[in-house]
Amino acid sequence: MLLIEKVLILKSSEIFQNTAETELVELAAILEEIYLEPNVTLFSKGDPGNCMYFIFNGTIKIHDGEHTLAVLGENEIVGELSVLDSESRSASATTLEECLLLKLEQEAFYEILMTNADILKGILKTLCKRLRVINKKSATMANLNPLK
Amino acid sequence: MLLIEKVLILKSSEIFQNTAETELVELAAILEEIYLEPNVTLFSKGDPGNCMYFIFNGTIKIHDGEHTLAVLGENEIVGELSVLDSESRSASATTLEECLLLKLEQEAFYEILMTNADILKGILKTLCKRLRVINKKSATMANLNPLK
Repeated sequence: MLLIEKVLILKSSEIFQNTAETELVELAAILEEIYLEPNVTLFSKGDPGNCMYFIFNGTIKIHDGEHTLAVLGENEIVGELSVLDSESRSASATTLEECLLLKLEQEAFYEILMTNADILKGILKTLCKRLRVINKKSATMANLNPLK
Repeated sequence: MLLIEKVLILKSSEIFQNTAETELVELAAILEEIYLEPNVTLFSKGDPGNCMYFIFNGTIKIHDGEHTLAVLGENEIVGELSVLDSESRSASATTLEECLLLKLEQEAFYEILMTNADILKGILKTLCKRLRVINKKSATMANLNPLK
């Protein structure tokens, strides 16, 4: 896979959408390509979370036992909270079809984060935006909720 | 105010709860003490958000015009999302009584953030934790919501 393809997949993800492409080159260079067959467990609930994955192609099921929480596809991210906060995986991830993933290790990620203010600010912006959106959504839902 | 008091107020806030006291000394040293009378506007909705405040004592109303969104008191933080993502203030803040606040400027904050991995990791941990909690709460509310 070309470096530019890796940069573009990073840029298209929510977590790096606020970071300039030129800043993402260093990060793209440390992404590891992973090919997986269908029905392979990427990680299990409770595993230590020390990396995140970008889905280049294929689909991945996020589940808790038999209960499916989400199905993620092309350009989506798996496990981004765990890589940021080192908490254990809150759910399991299993491939539904053949997948090409890009793996980003926590340690290398933090090293780049600490030397690149733009990437850091981009990520903080994304996390804050998510909080703002979800705060607003929660407030609306609380108003609709008859049990409140 | 003593430096150690400033360290303790930082440590007691949600955003720095995951950071060791020793790491907070540098940050505490750049906090500016601000005394405000009751009924003073700290900032207005739409203002650029380039600093955050820790409430040492007193109470502050977060409001949108006449509509009160929250009343914040001792050890609580005002405007922490704006300082992280540079978005404009989403609500106004007005003192309800005499207040002693500690002001943290965005620029100085980022400088320290970029040289201190522990502070950075602590903040990311807090933001991710908030997202996890609120995600879970949203999911529960969505299940309760009859309009869903």
